[in-house]
Amino acid sequence: MVGQKQIQRQTGVALWRQIADRIRASINHGDFDGTGMVPAETVLALQFGVNRHTVRSALAALGQEGVVRAVQGRGTLIERKEKLNFPISKRTRFSQGIGDQVREARGLLLDLAEEPASAEVARWLKLREGTNVIRFETIGTADKRPVSRATSWFPADRFAGIGEAYRKAGSITKAFREMGLPDYVRATTEITAMHADAADIADLELSPGAIALVTRAMNTDLAGVPVQYAITRFAADRVQFTIEN
Amino acid sequence: MVGQKQIQRQTGVALWRQIADRIRASINHGDFDGTGMVPAETVLALQFGVNRHTVRSALAALGQEGVVRAVQGRGTLIERKEKLNFPISKRTRFSQGIGDQVREARGLLLDLAEEPASAEVARWLKLREGTNVIRFETIGTADKRPVSRATSWFPADRFAGIGEAYRKAGSITKAFREMGLPDYVRATTEITAMHADAADIADLELSPGAIALVTRAMNTDLAGVPVQYAITRFAADRVQFTIEN
Repeated sequence: MVGQKQIQRQTGVALWRQIADRIRASINHGDFDGTGMVPAETVLALQFGVNRHTVRSALAALGQEGVVRAVQGRGTLIERKEKLNFPISKRTRFSQGIGDQVREARGLLLDLAEEPASAEVARWLKLREGTNVIRFETIGTADKRPVSRATSWFPADRFAGIGEAYRKAGSITKAFREMGLPDYVRATTEITAMHADAADIADLELSPGAIALVTRAMNTDLAGVPVQYAITRFAADRVQFTIEN
Repeated sequence: MVGQKQIQRQTGVALWRQIADRIRASINHGDFDGTGMVPAETVLALQFGVNRHTVRSALAALGQEGVVRAVQGRGTLIERKEKLNFPISKRTRFSQGIGDQVREARGLLLDLAEEPASAEVARWLKLREGTNVIRFETIGTADKRPVSRATSWFPADRFAGIGEAYRKAGSITKAFREMGLPDYVRATTEITAMHADAADIADLELSPGAIALVTRAMNTDLAGVPVQYAITRFAADRVQFTIEN
């Protein structure tokens, strides 16, 4: 275990918090990497010279932080910190955003259609409702593992043929370049979370009851004209977002 | 219903998508505000002259968008858009962030302690592990309804007494001002989602299985020195985040 300091009963810090900090430190130090689990409550209680109730409170706090997860009948699993970090900024792109964390980030085109813009799509793209838009359904993968599924809409008059360009390139950025748009920026991102629906579970290989992090995002050209609106559903157990101001 | 246009079977847009768009338009137009529900599948099928399977696909798509929610034995509820919008930017503050959407946004102090910084807290606050920090446990409320629960840490040497200041003011911004810090900025925010834990369920009045949107955030003074690290757990059914770049 990390740190040989005695647990101090007089510092005014709740005992369970001190235990939680010690267990967290041991996890970060890799002490339990062999099993991927925290030792049994009775073992920890003996080791720290406290009762099991205190250990339980400590583990509950670590569970709340997402450091460990209690699994009925098995014990306390250490949550592996393998989430992809997805930065949200003016420069947000799917592939480049996670590109340095994986060997291969790619988008797969599932469906492609031209259709009249719904009220919602029209509002985001600043078009009149019913104006033709191109709609993509895509899956984002990281090292062949599905990470997100997205529906994107593009103004059809400006981006005719973007579907084919995307199909070849596997990247919106490259497809835009093909269409004569060398650069674009993320203007607005809304983030919500909800339970995974049937399509999420199928396409992202989730368990029932899993969570989807959902973004609604609008990209514009450098003049501020909307070029893409997308609703993207990420597997919450594989992704976190980071915003640097 | 909004729009008297016939459903066009030859446009290349899947029929269920056209139906989904029509239902969405009717919802946005307020056609079902009386009941808060979408009419029964059989009614919609008759109305649009399509079969029930097509209506079901349309409702499934709207469910995926978060527009409606199927409730076993009751029908298809319209999801009310009553989420608080929480902007994340350099100027992120709890009360001001949602202040124009509610009558009263306030923080309640549940617990207050001085303790040595854990490895994680020390890393975010750029302190040595074990340096004394002040820890707050707070509940954020909007019109007396709990919205979030947060644990915040502050460097103890710089902000001695901030607990009392916060208890009086109910706002971190005002407490910082009391401590001689007139302004601060949000530097980094990480966003994840996980299932609500027991404390979330109790403090935020959630149902078991509900979702918590979790932010890890660091605020700095105008010179870039960290002044606060906070882990905040929001009720995902009540909050969305917005990032404007």
